[in-house]
Amino acid sequence: MSKLTPAEFLAILERGMPSAHALNLDVRSIEHGSATLVLPVDASHLRPGATLAGPTLFMLADLALYAAVMGAIGPVENAVTTSMTLNFLRRAGAEAPLRAEAKLLKLGRRLAVGDVSLYVGDALVAHATGTYSIP
Amino acid sequence: MSKLTPAEFLAILERGMPSAHALNLDVRSIEHGSATLVLPVDASHLRPGATLAGPTLFMLADLALYAAVMGAIGPVENAVTTSMTLNFLRRAGAEAPLRAEAKLLKLGRRLAVGDVSLYVGDALVAHATGTYSIP
Amino acid sequence: MSKLTPAEFLAILERGMPSAHALNLDVRSIEHGSATLVLPVDASHLRPGATLAGPTLFMLADLALYAAVMGAIGPVENAVTTSMTLNFLRRAGAEAPLRAEAKLLKLGRRLAVGDVSLYVGDALVAHATGTYSIP
Amino acid sequence: MSKLTPAEFLAILERGMPSAHALNLDVRSIEHGSATLVLPVDASHLRPGATLAGPTLFMLADLALYAAVMGAIGPVENAVTTSMTLNFLRRAGAEAPLRAEAKLLKLGRRLAVGDVSLYVGDALVAHATGTYSIP
Repeated sequence: MSKLTPAEFLAILERGMPSAHALNLDVRSIEHGSATLVLPVDASHLRPGATLAGPTLFMLADLALYAAVMGAIGPVENAVTTSMTLNFLRRAGAEAPLRAEAKLLKLGRRLAVGDVSLYVGDALVAHATGTYSIP
Repeated sequence: MSKLTPAEFLAILERGMPSAHALNLDVRSIEHGSATLVLPVDASHLRPGATLAGPTLFMLADLALYAAVMGAIGPVENAVTTSMTLNFLRRAGAEAPLRAEAKLLKLGRRLAVGDVSLYVGDALVAHATGTYSIP
Repeated sequence: MSKLTPAEFLAILERGMPSAHALNLDVRSIEHGSATLVLPVDASHLRPGATLAGPTLFMLADLALYAAVMGAIGPVENAVTTSMTLNFLRRAGAEAPLRAEAKLLKLGRRLAVGDVSLYVGDALVAHATGTYSIP
Repeated sequence: MSKLTPAEFLAILERGMPSAHALNLDVRSIEHGSATLVLPVDASHLRPGATLAGPTLFMLADLALYAAVMGAIGPVENAVTTSMTLNFLRRAGAEAPLRAEAKLLKLGRRLAVGDVSLYVGDALVAHATGTYSIP
């Protein structure tokens, strides 16, 4: 059972993270230790080469993992990223939305570790692994 | 000798990466394989807990490494990040600017690897290592 | 179709990597872009705390990814690791073998990226992502 | 002031980590949050291509960070690696010893983060960043 609803997640962003709330995220699902977020992309998310920018991919991966963590432990807003590794796999443009599927690999008392796959359609465009510290 | 001036770097962002150009970056220096960028931060860069958000730190680290790479190889706009690892070390608020100091550890024909230290004042708030693919 | 058999993989290690050949690996399978290796562990693989040592986990993850890469591209011995990130998730002792399941996330002309899950029995004890450079 | 001597470090390895004790490490220094270790290398440390193997580099980086952590907090043997990222920068053979220089970037109550530079002579052959969990 998820301990956080999509509406609660968006409310947390609205109160505390204006840059994320401005993204108009579609929170497809938050489960106990997993989450799927979809980002509508446009030209503002591109980098030179008309490619989705790394920071956009990082942002969505980080938010998806944050949602997956809080789906497991509830609305602990002060859970914070302690590390994140991204591998950028394929270039993608701004024609289609970006989807992040996060799932936890470990949920400890102090640390949660998860991975995130980022897709445009069926194409895996990036992969991330990250750690959240649980206060 | 740097192969890219701060003005050329900002012009590349203006043409191809609107999200980065909107940051009002202060490009302190670009050398052959190193760069220092300063980001004026405000409430829009915070995450829950009134802490600088991970995506803001990623963005500045990625841009500083991009500048360091182009300082070494010239305005090769299509150099792209292939991987990035960030460790978040200390929380920081929005009271003072965020500074990224990037330097290359390796410059090969196909790959450049570098690290980036992110500071608020004298405090090291995050550290990144990343790889750029050179087309 | 795999482009490398388990026997060919072990022969490559025997000729060129004595430390790996000495491990008495059980090469369960090598497919086109995936591989499963099993390491019989004993007290020589422990670190303080009677826990499987990080270098043992790294070694098996790295070899499994190497096998997965050569399963896809054939016996290109000089494919080399360019980066690897490991997350250590659960402690494990030396009672049961360590199993690595590697699969490629991307196979480009110059770089292959993959991830590796390391298990003791059903327990996920570590997760790795890595990049191989293809000469 | 270091809280661990080189002799104490080697005694910890001798008791709890036979694979590391067998390396005949030269522990050049352990300070409060930094350490320098030198590994005499030979053919047993090579991978195909007559290049120092990734697991050897990982092993030395991990041990150097372990020494740096215990230099800061004392002989807490159960401090364990939670994550490690390595970038392999230049190939090196077995002609000269491998030297690891580790230093902490952060020492918290629960986590220590550090980086390690690995050299053969003056050449930087690999770079690592890692996190230790402090029990």
